[in-house]
Amino acid sequence: MSDINSIQSKIPLSIEWKEGELFLLDQTLLPHEQVMEKQETVEQVWHSIKILKVRGAPAIGIAAAYGLCVAVKDQIKLPPDQFRSLVVEKAAYLDSARPTAVNLSWAMQRMLKLLSLDVQNSKDLYEALVQEAEKIHEEDKIICRGIGEQGAGLITDGMGIMTHCNAGALATSILGTATSLMYVAHDQNKKFKVFANETRPLFQGARLTAWELGKGGIDVTLITDSMAAHMMATGNIDMVVVGTDRVVANGDVANKIGTLGVAILAKHFGIPFYVACPSSTIDMDTKNGNDIPIEERDGAEITTIMGQKIAEAGTVTRSPAFDVTPNELVSGIITESQIIRAPYDEGLREFFKGK
Amino acid sequence: MSDINSIQSKIPLSIEWKEGELFLLDQTLLPHEQVMEKQETVEQVWHSIKILKVRGAPAIGIAAAYGLCVAVKDQIKLPPDQFRSLVVEKAAYLDSARPTAVNLSWAMQRMLKLLSLDVQNSKDLYEALVQEAEKIHEEDKIICRGIGEQGAGLITDGMGIMTHCNAGALATSILGTATSLMYVAHDQNKKFKVFANETRPLFQGARLTAWELGKGGIDVTLITDSMAAHMMATGNIDMVVVGTDRVVANGDVANKIGTLGVAILAKHFGIPFYVACPSSTIDMDTKNGNDIPIEERDGAEITTIMGQKIAEAGTVTRSPAFDVTPNELVSGIITESQIIRAPYDEGLREFFKGK
Repeated sequence: MSDINSIQSKIPLSIEWKEGELFLLDQTLLPHEQVMEKQETVEQVWHSIKILKVRGAPAIGIAAAYGLCVAVKDQIKLPPDQFRSLVVEKAAYLDSARPTAVNLSWAMQRMLKLLSLDVQNSKDLYEALVQEAEKIHEEDKIICRGIGEQGAGLITDGMGIMTHCNAGALATSILGTATSLMYVAHDQNKKFKVFANETRPLFQGARLTAWELGKGGIDVTLITDSMAAHMMATGNIDMVVVGTDRVVANGDVANKIGTLGVAILAKHFGIPFYVACPSSTIDMDTKNGNDIPIEERDGAEITTIMGQKIAEAGTVTRSPAFDVTPNELVSGIITESQIIRAPYDEGLREFFKGK
Repeated sequence: MSDINSIQSKIPLSIEWKEGELFLLDQTLLPHEQVMEKQETVEQVWHSIKILKVRGAPAIGIAAAYGLCVAVKDQIKLPPDQFRSLVVEKAAYLDSARPTAVNLSWAMQRMLKLLSLDVQNSKDLYEALVQEAEKIHEEDKIICRGIGEQGAGLITDGMGIMTHCNAGALATSILGTATSLMYVAHDQNKKFKVFANETRPLFQGARLTAWELGKGGIDVTLITDSMAAHMMATGNIDMVVVGTDRVVANGDVANKIGTLGVAILAKHFGIPFYVACPSSTIDMDTKNGNDIPIEERDGAEITTIMGQKIAEAGTVTRSPAFDVTPNELVSGIITESQIIRAPYDEGLREFFKGK
């Protein structure tokens, strides 16, 4: 693991928990500034998730788990019943920050399970919550590494790989999901090129993916989303791999807006389209993609860039933050323990049977 | 024509020739400022075309025709032979500003035909050049109106229409090509919605199309290019119409980067995809789309927006300005006199037989 640790060491961590305090890398400032921002209150954590200071399904889950600890840490003198009520309230609040990524509610549910612990006092419960958040965080590191090892075999010398948005180290604890394949393959000395779609409106591809892959030593070329089809048509792309905010029981995939378009283009050109995610991103309680809530964001994110107006004031916009890629466009779902392939309803059911 | 003239009167002209002087609307400043910039030299005209102060295939042709007059107007005391040589040289120079739109070389060739005129002096030749440029300009107005009338029948009440880039009044003399259908249909009191893709990297959709359609009274919604697939998947789009920089003999279509992706998405969702253009944009000398030169532009147009860096300095980019949509994805080519449909090789040959 020496080399891949050295790759990760060049990329800043998105989340740190140090001596009972939560620090989040403010990703809205990247790539210009690297600021680890201390999270003093639960409202601050909620806002950090809302405005994408911390983003990426796995990272949101981890940040919210720690955020729940931040929310209640000054209330450990409360009687346990009152403390439990407070935890329930704050978990619901954090869960409301963003609707699409299932890891947020997954992490909150996992934390809430601890409320059934028989404790002497609230301090013990608080400590159990911190341990659980740390466990979620540590597990994610192993999971991301596992995704990379499962998927790296798909990458061969000379390939061009397209990715959309940032399913990178910055979106997780370490190494990322989609990018983990790339880091592991790079560590295996494979030579390949990555094409990062800039990912409008918030430029996660330009600001985050191109930046972190560059830091990690990967040969990366930045293009606009509108160039994806041309790059495929001209033979530059052999595989697409993206992350996801939620996979549902039939294998439909919600991910950053623009993913559906890339998947359709990949199908048109006969290019395999893979989705990489931890099993915690798979939501077996939702039957198909039509039932995934799609966050609609402020149109100012389209009309204004870094404080500068691009379109005229008053321009009408739509701004869905995610789209749903139907299962028939997905070549495989790369998890920490296996690559699941169609038919997904069966494959996913089998996958969770053993868990 | 009263109402449609009143629609056009709300949108600034892209090109004006007044008392022997050329003025171009600096479209790089839109929608924030409306500046008609006097063109003093041929180098200035070349630069205005190069950096897209004037853009859109028909407008480039008109601007270059007048630009050729600007280039030689101070040299009318030269003997006719020397004057002719100068015209040839300056036409070649103007033609070199951008490679993909065929209207530029089409306009230059049309101007150069005047060199065979038997004239007494260079002043007469200059005046003939000015008249020809004015004729190209006036013809374009009739042609754009004709495109709108040919295509407006495709638009029905309740439709959602997607367009990419700006094939608008700003890209032509008046009314535009793709937008001419919309203005004429609006004048016919049809109710429909337009979705304008912002069109990265240079935001022609956000800065120009959303702006001019709004001024023209059209119900327009701005989206990022990455949202096109989602808008189609959710039933918002019934038709796509775009302009083009060059249609070739087999019906392949070069247009602003991103058009190919939209065409593939339209096919996937069973949505008709139309291309609107004057017949001067159809290049029967080029057999198929692979032979169209695709301009590659400076990557700074991707990494920097209004002077602000989005990606890290040194980020590697690709920046093709156009892509080629193969004929099988095109539902019809809307010209000033008819809608041409597949098979395009036959249809286009027939179309030009009568000309």
